[in-house]
This record gives sequence, C-alpha cells and structure tokens, in this order.
Amino acid sequence: MLEKINSPKDIKTLSCEQLDILAADIRKAIINRMSKRGGHLGPNLGMVETTIALHYVFDSPTDKFVFDVSHQCYTHKILTGRKNGFLSDEDFSKISGYTNPEESEHDFFNIGHTSTSVSLASGLAKARDQKGEKGNVIAIIGDGSLSGGEAMEGFDYIGEQQTNFIIVVNDNDMSISENHGGIYKNLRALRESNGNCPCNLFKAFGLDYLYVNEGNNIQKLIEAFQKVKDITHPIVVHINTLKGKGYKLAETHKEEWHWHLPFVIETGEPTIDESGENYVELTTQYLMKKMKADPKVVAIVAGVATNIGFTEERRKEFAAQLVDVGIAEEHGVAMASGMARNGAKPVFATHSSFFQRTYDQISQDLCINNNPATLLVNTASVWGMNDITHLGIFDIPMMSNIPNLVYLAPTCVEEYFAMLDWSIEQTEHPVAVRIPCNGTIHSNKYFAADYSKLNKYETITEGKDIAIIALGDFFQLGESVAQLLQSAHGITPTLINPRYISGLDTDMLKNLKKEHHIVVTLEDGILDGGFGEKIARFYGKDPMKVMNCGLKKEFIDRYKADDILRQNRLTKEQITEDIIRLM
Amino acid sequence: MLEKINSPKDIKTLSCEQLDILAADIRKAIINRMSKRGGHLGPNLGMVETTIALHYVFDSPTDKFVFDVSHQCYTHKILTGRKNGFLSDEDFSKISGYTNPEESEHDFFNIGHTSTSVSLASGLAKARDQKGEKGNVIAIIGDGSLSGGEAMEGFDYIGEQQTNFIIVVNDNDMSISENHGGIYKNLRALRESNGNCPCNLFKAFGLDYLYVNEGNNIQKLIEAFQKVKDITHPIVVHINTLKGKGYKLAETHKEEWHWHLPFVIETGEPTIDESGENYVELTTQYLMKKMKADPKVVAIVAGVATNIGFTEERRKEFAAQLVDVGIAEEHGVAMASGMARNGAKPVFATHSSFFQRTYDQISQDLCINNNPATLLVNTASVWGMNDITHLGIFDIPMMSNIPNLVYLAPTCVEEYFAMLDWSIEQTEHPVAVRIPCNGTIHSNKYFAADYSKLNKYETITEGKDIAIIALGDFFQLGESVAQLLQSAHGITPTLINPRYISGLDTDMLKNLKKEHHIVVTLEDGILDGGFGEKIARFYGKDPMKVMNCGLKKEFIDRYKADDILRQNRLTKEQITEDIIRLM
Repeated sequence: MLEKINSPKDIKTLSCEQLDILAADIRKAIINRMSKRGGHLGPNLGMVETTIALHYVFDSPTDKFVFDVSHQCYTHKILTGRKNGFLSDEDFSKISGYTNPEESEHDFFNIGHTSTSVSLASGLAKARDQKGEKGNVIAIIGDGSLSGGEAMEGFDYIGEQQTNFIIVVNDNDMSISENHGGIYKNLRALRESNGNCPCNLFKAFGLDYLYVNEGNNIQKLIEAFQKVKDITHPIVVHINTLKGKGYKLAETHKEEWHWHLPFVIETGEPTIDESGENYVELTTQYLMKKMKADPKVVAIVAGVATNIGFTEERRKEFAAQLVDVGIAEEHGVAMASGMARNGAKPVFATHSSFFQRTYDQISQDLCINNNPATLLVNTASVWGMNDITHLGIFDIPMMSNIPNLVYLAPTCVEEYFAMLDWSIEQTEHPVAVRIPCNGTIHSNKYFAADYSKLNKYETITEGKDIAIIALGDFFQLGESVAQLLQSAHGITPTLINPRYISGLDTDMLKNLKKEHHIVVTLEDGILDGGFGEKIARFYGKDPMKVMNCGLKKEFIDRYKADDILRQNRLTKEQITEDIIRLM
Repeated sequence: MLEKINSPKDIKTLSCEQLDILAADIRKAIINRMSKRGGHLGPNLGMVETTIALHYVFDSPTDKFVFDVSHQCYTHKILTGRKNGFLSDEDFSKISGYTNPEESEHDFFNIGHTSTSVSLASGLAKARDQKGEKGNVIAIIGDGSLSGGEAMEGFDYIGEQQTNFIIVVNDNDMSISENHGGIYKNLRALRESNGNCPCNLFKAFGLDYLYVNEGNNIQKLIEAFQKVKDITHPIVVHINTLKGKGYKLAETHKEEWHWHLPFVIETGEPTIDESGENYVELTTQYLMKKMKADPKVVAIVAGVATNIGFTEERRKEFAAQLVDVGIAEEHGVAMASGMARNGAKPVFATHSSFFQRTYDQISQDLCINNNPATLLVNTASVWGMNDITHLGIFDIPMMSNIPNLVYLAPTCVEEYFAMLDWSIEQTEHPVAVRIPCNGTIHSNKYFAADYSKLNKYETITEGKDIAIIALGDFFQLGESVAQLLQSAHGITPTLINPRYISGLDTDMLKNLKKEHHIVVTLEDGILDGGFGEKIARFYGKDPMKVMNCGLKKEFIDRYKADDILRQNRLTKEQITEDIIRLM
C-alpha cells in the first residue's frame, strides 16, 4: 500500500481496510529505519494510526500540524513525500529525526525540545486570525511532555482564546520513563472513566474536551477528528494509545525502546556495542555509593533518568534519593536550590542542551541565593549529541557568565570525581561540573580534593614562550599540541589545566607575561562569550598575543565531530601550524 | 498594638480583637513606607490578615514560609523583627522590598521573579524529610503567579508526593493587570461555588484542597491553617482576598496601585514627577500607529503590559493586537516565533531580567527556526532596575551569543525607531532591540532604514591612534571621552557606533589597524561573555591594545548607578585617565 502513497492526498480515497494495511506498511518502514539507524521507536510506533487519521481528515499544509518534541513525526514524514528516508538505506541520512521545514512544506518548525508545540502552534493560529485566513491548527503532544512548564503556559493561554485550535493529547501513560507528577493521576482517572471524570485537567485550563479510548483504531480516530475539524474554539482530543505498538519488545519494555540503538529486528539485540567504561555508568556507581553513605545526597533528574544511568531497578532501590521530576528542568533546579538551602546535598543532572531550559532558575533561584547545589552537565561537547536541537556547545557562554556559579571542567575520570565530590560536600557555592565527552581517560596524577580556592589554574608542564591553556576535555588536545611543538619544532610550551571555566587565575596569567609571548586557549564549545575571550580581555592591554581556539557561533546539524573540528582549525596539526605562524 | 510586636511569638497570645487592631497598625505601617518609598502596595495590603494568621498558627522559622515573588512579604517582615523598616524613615533602606535571608532567619530566599515558590519550598521539604526532621513547609503564591510554567511544574511535582506541604493560593482575581489564561475561569468557578466546583485545577494536579472565602478574616484564616497544620500530604488552601485592602484607591484601581511611586496618602497623588518624554510612551505611541496600519503587527507582553505603556484603555482599544499572555515568558517567545513563521509581525516586549526566563525558547523555538520575530528588551542597563532580582546587566552575554539572533543597540530615539521599524518589517532574522536607558536623547542625524547587512559598524568621527567603540546607551559616554581626550590632551580619537551587539564588523576592525594602536570598547553590562571580549579576541594576535570597559560580573543590590559606574572606572574622567596611561 505504501508504494502508492506520495502525498497526504493519496490516502484520502483509501478504504478502512486499506488504511489498516497502510498502517502495517508504515510500521515496517519505521522499524526498518530504526533497526539500522536507531532512534525514537516507541513513540513513533504508537502514533501511526493517529497520524494517518489526521492526514485523512485534515488538509496539510493548509491545516497545520505541530508535533511536540517531534519524537512521533515519522508517520507524518512518510505520508508527506519522505518515505524513502525509511525504506532505502542510502536515503536515511537525507531525513532528520525531527520535523524540519527544510525537508517539507508540511513541517513548520525544527523541534527537538519538549513541551513547545501548543505555544508554537498558537502563534500559527494567531497569525492566521490576524491575516483573516481559514484552516485548522493542530498541536500533537504526548502525556510526558505535559509536565514541562512551557506546555502548561501554552494550555493556559489557549484556554482563554475563542478561535480554532485543536490539541491532540497522545496519552500512552509513559514519559521517557514512567510519568512523574500529580497530573498523571488525573489522566488515569480520565482514561478509567472513558473521559467522564468530572475533575478534568484540560477543562480546568478552560478547554473543551473529547476522549478517544481506542487511540490505535484509525476509524475511531477519523470520527473524532471529523467531529472537531473546523471547530471555532480550542479543544483537547485526548487519545489513549499504546507506546511501541506493533513491535512486541517495544510494547513490553517501553522505556528501553523509547529510543534505541540499531538492532536485529527478530531479537532486539543491539548491533552496536556500547558497553565498556563510560561516564554515565561511572557517575551512577559513584552517586549510588554516596547515597548509601548519606541520605542527604539526592540526585534529581528531569525525565532523563537513564541518561545518567538510573535504570528502573536502580530508581526503585533509591526511591527516596533519586527524584525524577518529570520533564520539568525549571522545577528541578529550583528544588535543588531549596534542598541545598535546607542542608541536603542535591545533584541535578541533565544534558547541556536541556540546561538551556532553566537559565533563570540557575540565575535567580540558585545563584543569587548562593546555595551549594551541584549541577551535572552532560553531553556538553562537540562530541555530544549532534542534532541541531540538542547541541552541547553553548553551555559555556550560557552558564559561566552567571555570577556566583562555579563552573568546573575536569580533564579525566579522576579529576571529575575529585571535583564532583568536592562540589557535593562543600557548602559555599553553587557548582556546575561539565562531564568530559572524549572517552574515559584516566590519570595516575593526584588531584586536589579541595577546589574552594576559586580560579586557581594548574600548571602541568613548565615551558616558555608559549602557554597553552587547555580546558576540560580539550586538555588532551592541548597535550598533543604541546608534544607536536616539541617533536616537530623543538619548542617546550607551558601547558595549563585551568579547571575553572567561570573565572580567571589572574596571578598565574600575570606571571605568564615574564617568559611567554603567546597564550593559546582551547575550549570545547563556541568561542563567543566563552572561556578564551576572558583571557583575551585580560591580556588586551599587554603585548601578549592570544589565540583562542574553539567553535564558531552557529547552529550545526547532524555533523561529524571530526569535520567540525577540522573546519574550526582544531586538529593538533592545524593548531600547531597556527601557533608557528603566529611566532 | 504593633509597638509590642518584635517577633512572631509576640502575636500568639493576642485575642481576636487585638489581632484585628494589629492588622490595622500593620496596614498603616505599610502605607507609611510605600507613600515615602514607593513599592508593591496592592499585594501587600491584601495579605495582612493571611500573614498574621500564618504566624499565629505556624512557628517560623521551624515552620518555613516561602513567599512567591515576595511582593506580599511586608507583613511578614514587620512581624519578624523588621518593623522599623516601615515605621522610621531612616530605617527604610535597611530593609529590601523582597524576602532576604541576609535580613532575617525567617526568610529563606532572595526572591523577585514570579512562580518559583512551590519549587523552592519543595526543596526545603525534601531536605527536611531526608534529614528526618519535622515542621511545616508553606508556599504562598498569588493567582497571578500561577500562570508561570515553573509554578505549574512545582504543583505537578508536589501533587505526587506524600509529605507535609501547604500551598496558600492568594486569589485576589488579579495579576499585575487583569489575569489572562484559561485557568482563571476555573478559579472563578471555585470562588463562586465556595470551593465546591467538581472540576478543580488543584485537584487535577493531584492536590488536596481547602477553600476559604473570607481571605481577609483573621479568625477564619486561623481556623483553616489550624486544620492543615502538620498535615502529612500536600494541600492547597485557596483563599479569596481583596487586593489593596484598606486603602480605598488601591482597592478601586488595582492595577495602578499594584506597584506605585511615592504618594500623598490622603489624595494618592504621586510625589515624584515621572512625566516627560520617555521610551515607554514613545514605544507605545509607535506600536499603536503600526498596529493601526497593519493588523499583522501584534505586541505580546507577559504580565507587564503597562511597562511598555499599554494601559487598560489601550489594551481594550487594541484587543486583538495586544496579547497579554499572563506571566508566561516562555509561551510569549514561542508564540511570537509561531506568528512570525506564519507571516505576522510579532513584537514580544519585557524587561531584560525577565528575558532570562525564556532563554531556551529564544534559542530553540525562535533562533534555530530563524523566524523574524522582534524581541524588545527593556531596562537592560546599569540605569535599569536596581534590585538584585531585577538587574538589567546580564542580557548581552545571555542573548548575544545565541546563533542567528541579531541583537541591536540603538544610541538615541531616532536610531531606536529606525532599528525597530526595520526589525518589524524584515523577514530574515529574529531580532532583539535593546531600548536605551539613559534618557531620551535625540539626534538630527540620518539613520539607516535598513540593517540587513549585518554587523556593519558606523564610524561617527574619524580620528587616529585611538578608536572608541561605544555600544548603545554608552555611546554618549564614548562621545564624552572623545571630547575630553580632545580638549585635555589634544587627541582626536575615532568614535564608532557598533549598532550590532551580536557580531563583529571584521572589515572595519581590520582597517583600524592601519592608524590606530588602541581600541576602547564601552558596554552597559557585565564584561564577561559580552561585547568587548569579542573585540579583544579579534585583536588577540595583533599588537593592537584593547581596553574593555564595562561592569564586573556580580550580583549587585539596591545600588546607585553613579556608584557602580565609578567603582567600575566608567566615568569619562576615569576612562580617559586609563586611556592616557595605556598610551
């Protein structure tokens, strides 16, 4: 059936049976791509029928769909001219894992963070109304995304409007892991009462409401969407779907198959071996040991528990000390501040890209109050996630310029744990630690147990003429450059591990003036607003030459780290060449 | 009665009648301070009885109060040993307008942004539980603050917990202006049904619920709080209060008296004249004209409509084109992105400090998608708001390092409107405009109508040896320095208006190398991560000396701008002296 489908128009004449066959075909295509590329399997499989029904009833792109977080947009992509990205190996990389306006007129936004769909779609609707145009605007949002503040702000806003707006709430009773939050009791009550529970979260937001129990039944969904098409006020269509539907393993082990590595379809066995030592597992082991020793140590996660290694089993074991707040980073950071204020030892961990969702809480709730909470910043690196919506190269300008925050960059496993341990036990500062991303490098060196003398850099090799200040997981790059300068040019540079991202060691920098005339900074992130620029400012009035090495300020997408490093002249050879030229 | 009250213990033995007399005394004290200093009159007057009842029933600081946004904490301050800050003129400045742990053990956080109380308090509660301690934790939050995403994340989190937690929802049916959002229909239904409406927002969040209709009746409040004291699960106590209670003008004109300048108590007449030309009124006049001419122009505000001049009357006139989304900045920016995507011309305006609440929406919802919305950044300056929670000196590092965002800094009224007009009409970039804060300075100069050739700086005076790059509302400071160099030292420096905060004019900067050996940058904000450091990086490898002038990275509180400028060597004399020394 899928062979005949090249645009949404092609499904409008299909019979019920044909639509069901189409659903089966689409499922196969999704599993095909996922098995070879990996990706968000569970949410996509659960939404096949809904998406078919949406395209059957509505007329995209005149009617406009906005898929929240777009983890469930693959059927939409397949129906809107992009099926080859799921069927043919050589076309896989032409299609991104998220909605993408560059791919299709049926996509309106690049979306990869949760809880944004209602707000973005409400803007489409408002523009429609101001232009005097017609058409439906439909936001599609999962139950897991409801816990994010932006989503609730969106529901609240739209609940007051009197205009066409349809919110499809895809309720599969799961976030990435199990849901956390009081609203999920209400969603359960609604499901169990077939939508008739008098206390109704969506109605409390001022919205009209329709419940569809059989959320994987195309015919029932078509009927529901036909009812709400061209409605003149906002309505929630709450549908009950099965996450992972159609792939037994994903139906049974929902969390494991929310996102999955490439796998053998028949067995589910991953085809990529990602075992071996890694920071996630090391961190979990460390935290679990700390928790056992001290009930005041509490790890807080916002929906992504397994990304710092807290599997379901471990979450149960540490129920009181592993708090999953749902996808609610703002709450997570503020709560951490409150805990630290009252004598506990909180560690809030998430990805660099998701820390962006909580800038003001870091600044206002945490740093103005100078509470000693620990923020653990994951995948903050050019080697982090490489989708445009999940980049880990902006945290240095975002976080290191907030007063009072001590932002630390370890260079190896041992230094990471020295810093983390100090951070958890100290009571003076909010501290963020940037987890290295260049593999688990070990050192026999002794690392300080105390980082309370802020902004003291460490000289690793004493040299002269040139000083290389190599931050965090670019430290090894700095070492390589130093070795190359030595071996190829007979120069022994000074090599420095700055350790602190958020401040300058002015004494050391002053001292460098005596026997150095070039300072090179290396940082794993964009240069604008970053670490190296602070050094450049420090030496601005001096004859010292400063060469800042890092990334260009730009959004990059589905890149290879090696390519980006080369483009930014960040290989050891390029850096050495640039230093020699500067001499 | 107030004379005898020096700590919360002193009210525990008072009779009903005495408590009522105390309330009257406190009200007088609040009005006394407000009339001389200005401040948040309405919310504080409405909460006198509640705060007395809270301190009567609970035992602060063992029982812990967290006041949301802390616009209503004055009675709490008065009851906890700080009454002189309200009674005696010479003590006014010892007491801040917000809760402040440096003032008292009864305050747990510096708070000035909305919607944070439940999350912060939930951290206090979690730490209490992990330490095995007892005591009540009480978050006090107004209905207006409920619309913020962080608040709803907090409600959702706590709704799932099984521990003591009390949320007092102070419902006066007002935000700063009238409330906006679907939830307010539910609050009304709850008030009108004496709390018995079966559809209940708070219950939908999983919370227990108690309604108190007479929210300004101390006895009823005491009864309610006694009921919930030491409760072992979370509960909302929803109280119906009168904003501005006890000062007739504030009861009648709630919006005008939410925050008020110093005034004559008898008449309400302000004692400070703030009429005269200002950017707020100029901006409103401009926007109203644009809106009249084009229905696609839509101004979006998040609770602070009057801060960009949209009074109640004007909001009514432009009902479809002035969207107050409630205190929901995340939604505001995302909605603006959606509107721009669909061909409208949105302008989202708020204070510099409140843009912090929407970093991720600027980055993800807006800038990754490169939609042509306009962000209008108010009070972004050392001359902006001077409370630690409302500083306007961090927006340059926060916003100018986000890719794709064009951040513009006008130097006078005419340039501001040239930039704003270009921003609204262009269709290529997300643009932010930083409204000057140093008074309305006019210029007869012609300003470009087109800023689409990005990052082209403008040379105002051609000179040599020294180039002064003076950004935005520090441009006039740059002019003064140039004049002083000329008059006192016979030097004619080059003076440059960079116009673009977010990028470098590399051609011009290269050209400067020919006849200049010192570049001075001036910016109205912290230096770390800011504009000047980019210039320092650019010249890092050159002999050019770079002197960056701006503020130190720190939280400052209730400061005088002149003092801060002097401390940071930012007077024209100091800068000139430093330049001469550098020569």
